[in-house]
Amino acid sequence: MERNELKEQELLDQALSFIENKQYTLLKNYLADQNPADIAAIMEEVEDKDIPIIFRILPKDEAAETFSYMESETQRKLIVAFSDKELREVLDDLYLDDTVDMIEEMPANVVAKILRNTDIQTRKNINELLKYPDDSAGSLMTIEYVYFNRDMTISEALDRIRSVGVVKETIYTCYVTQNRKLVGVVSVLQLLTADPQTKIEEIMDSNVIYVHTDDDQEYVAKQIQKYDFLALPVVDKEDRLVGIITVDDVIDVIHEELTEDVSKMAGITPNENSYFNTSVFQHAKSRIGWLLFLMLSATLTGMVINHYEHLLVTVPLLYSFVPMLTGTGGNSGSQAATLIIRGLSMDEIQLKDIFKVMFKEFRIALLVSSVLAVVNGARIAIVYWNNDQGVNSILLGLAIAISIVFVIVLAKTVGCVLPMIAKKIHLDPAIMAAPLISTIVDACAVLIYCNVCIIMFDNLL
Amino acid sequence: MERNELKEQELLDQALSFIENKQYTLLKNYLADQNPADIAAIMEEVEDKDIPIIFRILPKDEAAETFSYMESETQRKLIVAFSDKELREVLDDLYLDDTVDMIEEMPANVVAKILRNTDIQTRKNINELLKYPDDSAGSLMTIEYVYFNRDMTISEALDRIRSVGVVKETIYTCYVTQNRKLVGVVSVLQLLTADPQTKIEEIMDSNVIYVHTDDDQEYVAKQIQKYDFLALPVVDKEDRLVGIITVDDVIDVIHEELTEDVSKMAGITPNENSYFNTSVFQHAKSRIGWLLFLMLSATLTGMVINHYEHLLVTVPLLYSFVPMLTGTGGNSGSQAATLIIRGLSMDEIQLKDIFKVMFKEFRIALLVSSVLAVVNGARIAIVYWNNDQGVNSILLGLAIAISIVFVIVLAKTVGCVLPMIAKKIHLDPAIMAAPLISTIVDACAVLIYCNVCIIMFDNLL
Repeated sequence: MERNELKEQELLDQALSFIENKQYTLLKNYLADQNPADIAAIMEEVEDKDIPIIFRILPKDEAAETFSYMESETQRKLIVAFSDKELREVLDDLYLDDTVDMIEEMPANVVAKILRNTDIQTRKNINELLKYPDDSAGSLMTIEYVYFNRDMTISEALDRIRSVGVVKETIYTCYVTQNRKLVGVVSVLQLLTADPQTKIEEIMDSNVIYVHTDDDQEYVAKQIQKYDFLALPVVDKEDRLVGIITVDDVIDVIHEELTEDVSKMAGITPNENSYFNTSVFQHAKSRIGWLLFLMLSATLTGMVINHYEHLLVTVPLLYSFVPMLTGTGGNSGSQAATLIIRGLSMDEIQLKDIFKVMFKEFRIALLVSSVLAVVNGARIAIVYWNNDQGVNSILLGLAIAISIVFVIVLAKTVGCVLPMIAKKIHLDPAIMAAPLISTIVDACAVLIYCNVCIIMFDNLL
Repeated sequence: MERNELKEQELLDQALSFIENKQYTLLKNYLADQNPADIAAIMEEVEDKDIPIIFRILPKDEAAETFSYMESETQRKLIVAFSDKELREVLDDLYLDDTVDMIEEMPANVVAKILRNTDIQTRKNINELLKYPDDSAGSLMTIEYVYFNRDMTISEALDRIRSVGVVKETIYTCYVTQNRKLVGVVSVLQLLTADPQTKIEEIMDSNVIYVHTDDDQEYVAKQIQKYDFLALPVVDKEDRLVGIITVDDVIDVIHEELTEDVSKMAGITPNENSYFNTSVFQHAKSRIGWLLFLMLSATLTGMVINHYEHLLVTVPLLYSFVPMLTGTGGNSGSQAATLIIRGLSMDEIQLKDIFKVMFKEFRIALLVSSVLAVVNGARIAIVYWNNDQGVNSILLGLAIAISIVFVIVLAKTVGCVLPMIAKKIHLDPAIMAAPLISTIVDACAVLIYCNVCIIMFDNLL
């Protein structure tokens, strides 16, 4: 971590000083040794006017790759500054999935400039890829892959890799097709270690794991992860091979999906842009929905309190324990919810396990709540030993203790059941998030507490 | 998702029926076509007595790989059932990092049996790897990698891959060493596309990105992700190449780290086991700490309420709005906290940005709160138009509206500042989680609200 930032800082400072002093030859040699990802990071930091200057002194073969690592905003600035010739050179070296991702981020006029500088075939492919729904395997895949016929020999296969390899996103997993249908898969390791005269079909694995263009990217990620693949083939409805998805794209998907879950669980509408790239208005928009809903639901708790007003007016002291009870309830509930949501999304927990889960949470709740009940009950019995409201502090401690047990058991149950119900009715479990659970538990907690008090302090009422 | 489970279900049912009917030849042929990961999944479902039977009919070359995909509990059952010869066969084919991961999960007697069946050299290597701290690059790496000398020719390099490739975890990225020091990296693509007589040093990239054995696994994951690598070399303190980390291990790390964050943010002590593999007692233990702490902190809010008792006794109605205010405050606070924690862990937000963040959150808070204030203020002004407690409902609505604005602005500020402070003092920002923020905000919310009321309703008090 620290070292990471440190290294980047050095890189950046060095580069910036070259730029300031217009030492472009030094900068050129310096950047030639750097990794494109690092150069892209530098591009994010320099002044707009310098972006094209730096880009133009990059070695041709590194320019396009560097470009693919840049933030879309920086890419836009460059494209605007590019001559058509420069743009064409970059586009020719970009993988199609990167081009498409870029186009999706660009304003219309920039898109026009991009399309104007791509040949008909590429434009056709781009439009194909743009058709796939967001988050689908189709929108994630690239069409730059290596494929063989089953009757090719290994040496022929290796020759093909040599001739086309450099422009393919990965060559290490190659696919075998027969009239465009996917029939097998071979790894470069197999090609290297078998006899050059062997036919592909003799060494290929014909039990191919693949996904369909309309499969969700989360499913794709799970497959790559389960089988430890470097790439996964994508087929259309007629089982024809149309593209591949590489492991590096999947890592981004995993991050995106998990960030989405985390946002939903905090009652925020997920948003693909980074924190700073999201406008104040956008942020407000993505947060206000849930807040509004939860605020109004919270008035439910208010009504419960109104209903027991007499109790709280006669013995106001009782009132001061409500926040502690609702807080504890809400927290226990969201603990359960979080673990269940996580378990569901990792496929560790299945819907059929619901009673197993409920029983487990029930026992956890008993264990946790009894400890909390004893600690807090005792504390209260002592602290309020002689209070001005004639409340027997032992009874008070007992009332709190009993309420804590009931509240936590209820909270844990709600916390584990709601996400599973959500999944059952094909909602995203993550929306049954901490805030919602707390709001529901709050009202119940007050209800439980007030009734316990009424039973135990009827002499005072 | 659905299809995923479906396919697995079919697989499983088919396999189970073969086992029931003791049709082992059919089962053998059936499994021969399946992917090891799928076979491992089947192993998890069958009865204990069948596990060794099934394992023994697996094709030799698939057995070890299947083994590496199994849950450690199933692995244990197998090892216990294994003859020393069988165990040796499996261990020989396992990658060392998998063996070490396994050993870390096993009870002493099983570990003994494993070590008894490994040759001295392997045992030495295992002990080396076991020495590295958990979550370090050293504990994540494998020592099965391909390395060349800089003066080898490409054809010599390819020959080496052919001879040793199959037992290495990846051959697609190879490393160049000079007296064990890491001096360069070459990809198989480069080897295949360059002239066989070229010397390695002519095509190798000498600007190698690497990590140290003691680097944190999170840093490793970030590097692989940043550079889209398939593997990352690991060097010791003397910069000698000691191992590599492959992308598939990193995907697991990313999941682990994010799950950890999510747990912490819900006030749960992270735990590496899955939900069901964690005992009720363990679950309780990992949840009770925070609950206890938060429960006691929540009494702070109680004290505030006590302090304003007179206010709430004279106008009990005012009281019923407290849960709504604390709830809204807590939720707005955790929204901010969640986004900041996420941004920090993705390096999108740096500590130096703190004022930028605060200003942004301030504007968001104003926008969000004014909407909520208007909606709820108006609602209250109308609903409580004539109430029995002589409260002017317009004033009441106004009081609530004003309080909402103050509470949300405060909550967002607390929510974004606390995680950054945590990071600054080298705590994990994720512990400044929703529950803690809510608890803090609760007390402040009541304080703000009561004072607003006192100012606005002094005529009633």
